[in-house]
Amino acid sequence: MATRLTADQLYPGSNPGLGFHKEKNMDIRVQKTYEGLFTLEDIREIFRQSLPSGLDPGEEQALQSRISTLKQIVSDIEHAAGTPAITKIAGTLDIRCREEDFINIHPIQAAGRLTPEARKALISYGDGYSTCDTCRKPFRLDKISKPPIAEFHEELAKFLNMDQARVVPGARRGFQAVNATLVEKGDSVIVSALAHYTEFLAVEGAGGVVKEVPLSKGNIVTGDATAEKIEEVKREIGRLPKLVMIDHFDYQFANEHEVAAVAKVAHQYDIPFLYNGAYTVGVQPVDGKKIGADFVIGSGHKSMASVAPSGVLATTDEWAPKVLRTTQMLGDVTKRKFGIKEVEMLGCTLMGGTLLSMMASFPAVKERTLRWEEEVEKSNFFMERLLQIEGSRILSEYPRKHTLTKVDTTGSFDTVAKTHKRRGFYFSDELSSRGIAGEFAGATRTWKLNTYGLTWNQVRYLADAFIEIAEKYQLNMKK
Amino acid sequence: MATRLTADQLYPGSNPGLGFHKEKNMDIRVQKTYEGLFTLEDIREIFRQSLPSGLDPGEEQALQSRISTLKQIVSDIEHAAGTPAITKIAGTLDIRCREEDFINIHPIQAAGRLTPEARKALISYGDGYSTCDTCRKPFRLDKISKPPIAEFHEELAKFLNMDQARVVPGARRGFQAVNATLVEKGDSVIVSALAHYTEFLAVEGAGGVVKEVPLSKGNIVTGDATAEKIEEVKREIGRLPKLVMIDHFDYQFANEHEVAAVAKVAHQYDIPFLYNGAYTVGVQPVDGKKIGADFVIGSGHKSMASVAPSGVLATTDEWAPKVLRTTQMLGDVTKRKFGIKEVEMLGCTLMGGTLLSMMASFPAVKERTLRWEEEVEKSNFFMERLLQIEGSRILSEYPRKHTLTKVDTTGSFDTVAKTHKRRGFYFSDELSSRGIAGEFAGATRTWKLNTYGLTWNQVRYLADAFIEIAEKYQLNMKK
Repeated sequence: MATRLTADQLYPGSNPGLGFHKEKNMDIRVQKTYEGLFTLEDIREIFRQSLPSGLDPGEEQALQSRISTLKQIVSDIEHAAGTPAITKIAGTLDIRCREEDFINIHPIQAAGRLTPEARKALISYGDGYSTCDTCRKPFRLDKISKPPIAEFHEELAKFLNMDQARVVPGARRGFQAVNATLVEKGDSVIVSALAHYTEFLAVEGAGGVVKEVPLSKGNIVTGDATAEKIEEVKREIGRLPKLVMIDHFDYQFANEHEVAAVAKVAHQYDIPFLYNGAYTVGVQPVDGKKIGADFVIGSGHKSMASVAPSGVLATTDEWAPKVLRTTQMLGDVTKRKFGIKEVEMLGCTLMGGTLLSMMASFPAVKERTLRWEEEVEKSNFFMERLLQIEGSRILSEYPRKHTLTKVDTTGSFDTVAKTHKRRGFYFSDELSSRGIAGEFAGATRTWKLNTYGLTWNQVRYLADAFIEIAEKYQLNMKK
Repeated sequence: MATRLTADQLYPGSNPGLGFHKEKNMDIRVQKTYEGLFTLEDIREIFRQSLPSGLDPGEEQALQSRISTLKQIVSDIEHAAGTPAITKIAGTLDIRCREEDFINIHPIQAAGRLTPEARKALISYGDGYSTCDTCRKPFRLDKISKPPIAEFHEELAKFLNMDQARVVPGARRGFQAVNATLVEKGDSVIVSALAHYTEFLAVEGAGGVVKEVPLSKGNIVTGDATAEKIEEVKREIGRLPKLVMIDHFDYQFANEHEVAAVAKVAHQYDIPFLYNGAYTVGVQPVDGKKIGADFVIGSGHKSMASVAPSGVLATTDEWAPKVLRTTQMLGDVTKRKFGIKEVEMLGCTLMGGTLLSMMASFPAVKERTLRWEEEVEKSNFFMERLLQIEGSRILSEYPRKHTLTKVDTTGSFDTVAKTHKRRGFYFSDELSSRGIAGEFAGATRTWKLNTYGLTWNQVRYLADAFIEIAEKYQLNMKK
């Protein structure tokens, strides 16, 4: 039924790096789906420009003309017919069809893909301050009840088993808020030797200095190593660190670190513990109290199927008065004081589509965390198949406990790159011609991929594609 | 042609506070437009769940079923027929149709409404890290060339006649970056007696203290008053303020303040000047160099037709090395250093739909700033009509130089509220029954409205509605 065009027919002169490859057959129905969405946005705009009393004859005519276009588009979707009528948005932006036309294994994109409900919420609430229609006293985002933002904040805290939660523009803004609250010039903060760069920056911004916990066997941050590091800092600086901030799963290997043990150690020294859940909150169950976290931070666009920049900062009733302290600043002339506004949040945080996408994804996100084990199973299924290709290695801990994995194909796919005229790009070419995207283009030695959210069919297809490429280039297979 | 249903028929049991009122007749075609958009999102999801090799029979069947639904929806739009089939997104969120069904005069929403191009970009780039498909060395958002983010940053700087620009999660995050860079504990920052609360918070977060410039005649911040204030601070604290941060148009009256004179005064004392363009950047031409600004800050969701939270921080080559300084932090164990990441930006800022909405709106935003005078004209047209209703006053400077205005209807509409059983809400009822939304519900004394972006027809309709309500309640009209 589906007419499948090559990318060149669909998008003449298009750049393969953009998310599709010339050899890959695209489905015209995806293109037409976008055109249908865009035409409905044009229709919506007619209503936006009209009077509440109704459309005038010119507007009615414009509407009927758009409806004719739309009918043709619907027919094209039905019959997999037609050719692209729209290729650029605002004259410069390509239509991004990576998630529709490809299996996307990009390391950081997988769990940030929007749910259909989030996309619908975004259509409805994309406009600037769309959350503020019924903002009333005390004029703070997390107090708004229509849409149910206040309720969402309560559920978010409960979801993480913490006392209070705020939405923030990305996990990094959560690190910033906590560090700015606790750290003064010259203070030290314990981080992992695999800490994300945003943790470094948050400490630096507060005037502090990072002290890394060295990795133990298997590239794991342990409670013991953390205790040793705290002792070392105490000896060196003469003061205890102000904060211990450790990723549950790190961004490099997505190895699982001993967060509960680390929290326990931190508390033995009376140091608060920040749990970095950028790779856990929204994909697996996170119980902040059980872990012993004083702060739980998650990323909306990384792991909660939300628009960037978004994230969550959750804390306990003990720490909320500090990190969520309200303003004390007084205008010297006017005596104004904006009492309820929180200094580190800078008042309201996500006043539009970002928050509404988080809220709309939230029921699905809660549900999917309960299916984490199956996601890990799919990850391991793929890795087992990859390891059948001789010379391939898993650099992350194995068996996998996460869907993000660092692999080393120096001994397999890279052996081909050495003599191929496209070098490492041959591998990207092979993947994209099979409808797979998100590998680091050209990389055939150590690289990362993420299988999160793929269906079993998609994971099997992915594994088969890797085997197929290996066979095509006559790489040895383990029996 | 259009069957117009009451809100109760459309949304039984709906809350009038949500953006529509029971008396207002809604156009079923708006509802059906949303349903069409949502159905296309469901179709899109079928492709997302499928294999690159094509849809399987079950998926084909699901697709055809959605297409049948879609055809009916298109027919309903064409014939203005049908009844609502979808009323909630994700089970809890109402469809927001305030911009389609109403003339929205909300003070802060007007210029943040998305352009149709921004809505299309958002549909395409809503997913989490959607900007990162082709992120390559040196791995920083503003260096990405596909989509053309690097180019956009250059254009943004040029648009404001500044040397460098960065996107930030809201103007407030720009204030924060500058204050965190320049202000140390106990330092003072000059702000206006009409400063926005986020400026207070940014100073407080940096450990500083605000010093307000008192208002001169007509509620204007002048260069002279700023000079006096700087002298006063110097006498009192013994040190000069570290920053002068003044709004071009303030959030209370949207009066125009003497920013160029203020900049000149600040520079006479060698103090940098931050131009707060939350109410100008994106609606009127802003020439940072001509003003003498060291920092120009704008708001995406307030004035640049973008998704929240978004904004811009622009600066000069003199100040860029300070406010955009790159990280110096070194991992003590790993010796890692994330050289190109900017401390105050916390690395990448708007990695998805927020930025793409800014970019997609940008051509229209640039163009509309050239039509600012006409926007002001429409604002004055409305105010003239309002003043015909005896007892009405304009609290902002008049004639208006902006589309946001603070009015006082204590002597007109509030006289009715005194005895009306719905109190001030009678006025909201009257407005919403005429398809007007965005007034502060229940307020009939001093309140704010914004006519930005309304067509002439819509402004005339708005003015007529006010006169009509006045006449209905037999308020006196000036001849």
